Amino acid sequence: MYDEFNVSSKIAGSYSVAFINDLDQQLMLLAKGERVIFIIDQKVLHLFNENFESIMSSARLVLIDSSETSKTLDYSQEIIRKLLKINIRKGDRLIAIGGGITQDIVAFISSILFRGLEWIFLPTTLLAQCDSCIGSKSSINFDSYKNLLGTFNPPSQIFIYHGFLNTLTEVEIRSGIGEMLHYFFTDGIKLAQQLTDQIDQIILDRTKLRFFIRESLQIKKRIIEIDEFDLSIRHIFNYGHTFGHALEAITNYEISHGQAVTFGMDLANYISLKSAMINERQFAEMHNVLLKNIPTYEFNLANIEDYLSALMKDKKNKGNKIGCILTRGPGKIEKIFLDNDGWLKRTILDYSSKFNYA
Amino acid sequence: MYDEFNVSSKIAGSYSVAFINDLDQQLMLLAKGERVIFIIDQKVLHLFNENFESIMSSARLVLIDSSETSKTLDYSQEIIRKLLKINIRKGDRLIAIGGGITQDIVAFISSILFRGLEWIFLPTTLLAQCDSCIGSKSSINFDSYKNLLGTFNPPSQIFIYHGFLNTLTEVEIRSGIGEMLHYFFTDGIKLAQQLTDQIDQIILDRTKLRFFIRESLQIKKRIIEIDEFDLSIRHIFNYGHTFGHALEAITNYEISHGQAVTFGMDLANYISLKSAMINERQFAEMHNVLLKNIPTYEFNLANIEDYLSALMKDKKNKGNKIGCILTRGPGKIEKIFLDNDGWLKRTILDYSSKFNYA
Repeated sequence: MYDEFNVSSKIAGSYSVAFINDLDQQLMLLAKGERVIFIIDQKVLHLFNENFESIMSSARLVLIDSSETSKTLDYSQEIIRKLLKINIRKGDRLIAIGGGITQDIVAFISSILFRGLEWIFLPTTLLAQCDSCIGSKSSINFDSYKNLLGTFNPPSQIFIYHGFLNTLTEVEIRSGIGEMLHYFFTDGIKLAQQLTDQIDQIILDRTKLRFFIRESLQIKKRIIEIDEFDLSIRHIFNYGHTFGHALEAITNYEISHGQAVTFGMDLANYISLKSAMINERQFAEMHNVLLKNIPTYEFNLANIEDYLSALMKDKKNKGNKIGCILTRGPGKIEKIFLDNDGWLKRTILDYSSKFNYA
Repeated sequence: MYDEFNVSSKIAGSYSVAFINDLDQQLMLLAKGERVIFIIDQKVLHLFNENFESIMSSARLVLIDSSETSKTLDYSQEIIRKLLKINIRKGDRLIAIGGGITQDIVAFISSILFRGLEWIFLPTTLLAQCDSCIGSKSSINFDSYKNLLGTFNPPSQIFIYHGFLNTLTEVEIRSGIGEMLHYFFTDGIKLAQQLTDQIDQIILDRTKLRFFIRESLQIKKRIIEIDEFDLSIRHIFNYGHTFGHALEAITNYEISHGQAVTFGMDLANYISLKSAMINERQFAEMHNVLLKNIPTYEFNLANIEDYLSALMKDKKNKGNKIGCILTRGPGKIEKIFLDNDGWLKRTILDYSSKFNYA
């Protein structure tokens, strides 16, 4: 039996998310579908070679290189050429198997080839399973601009298979945990506490993630069903992201996305504290949860200016003001525009001197 | 006063088509809008230099080269780079001024930049005014594949200014007339007769086109409001196009699109006659209308095979069968799958020997 729910969409009407236990059977079912083409991350194919054996001989298949440098128009064109070589036609359906980058490329191609193709998604990373698989967004980098291009184009079906999580590194698991924590904190503190309490066991036994993945998607679902196109309340999901992205940027993406987001939430909370939006007790309560997934990093006079300029590049900014997602406590997220002034700089340095993770 | 109507759309909710008399005033109004960027066909800017003077100094502006070779991802990227140079941001609106190719590029860029931008369109060719400006389609060529890529993305507003038609050549006017004839014949014979009766006067006085442009858009509007994504009845608008496209292809696009469509309708009617779908009187009645806009071309044993292979490349084909849009008389259009066999070849050669336009 499937554990399954639907996400309503202004683009697709509705699409399904199903948790599956038998990958081989699901692949066989999908391969039997009319006019399907599999697009598979080559690393995933290699790791789960045996599961894919049954479809390898008969199915039409394109392999994808899912490095961040693949998220370009040039690489998308390469994949389109491969699809044309195996005679893709209007009305064919694409089945994407991989993480967020595979998702971005396949969703984007599905948006522009033949004015739109149906696509199905089997996310293989924790980040893709707990977050990006729903929400309709695709993103493609352009020149030096990250995620400048993209579309809203959800898959028609999503199948989540827990077994894919077994081959992930601890860093990848912790990255997903950071992303889940940010969803949980937009809802309250209970789930976040539950998740970090078990963090060591989860890293050893990934089946424990299934419950949290489902909860994370349920929280995201409630918001994107109201604001699919990110025009209003969906902005709460930028919590931890403004400060996190800037950290990723100045550390050359050596800190994983989800751990940078964990750091970003803690810093956002500290700024909320210093803005009198939360009290010391509230800050400490959240801090103790986040602490279990926080990366080591210390601000000082040498790197703070880089960090502030990275913050200034955020898309949510208005003029000279930084669009920050702050908190009035768990479940109470708020967008505030902060001046990029001495106060912000001192507050960030102050945060680092108090909570030194270096 | 505007003459204005709305087109309902599953993507945009609804968008407006307004016939304007004062271009200068409209441009000034648009330029006053918040965060707008003009993208103008450089040929149009040159021809209507005086009208654009008022906005040239203050407005943000990108010029576009609207040759068919521009309809590529590479050229779209060039335009995106120009837009980034003048600081385009999420939420800016693009105002496209040009013909179908300008429309294709701006609509496509608006679909993928920042996951979607609003765009406004002032069509300058007869083809764009009477046909392509509504219907949501954008098309981009890819390698040797014509219109392989694209999206459904209508402008939010369309302004039709008759003065743009004054600089068009007779060939461009006749191309638009062919396209209008095909809309009219999906509705009946009256408008088609009215249009071709005045064809010589129209070529001299383009203000006479306004009535027919409006009628053409009204017929298209009724169908695309039901079948915006071209999944069912919109296929009737392929009338004349299957046979027309193949003629364009084998003559290296030396025959204009609309005149090839005129030829395509006449040939489709002849095949309909030989398939006993219409009688001699019906064929003759339509033939006499089409005759006034038909290009010179003759099939013979030397070119017929090229023509049949061009027909075989049509996207509407199923396996070895050619998807043809035939007629049971004016206003009664029907999709029929024909075998690519001796009968079809003989019928086409037969048509050419009877109606020799060479």
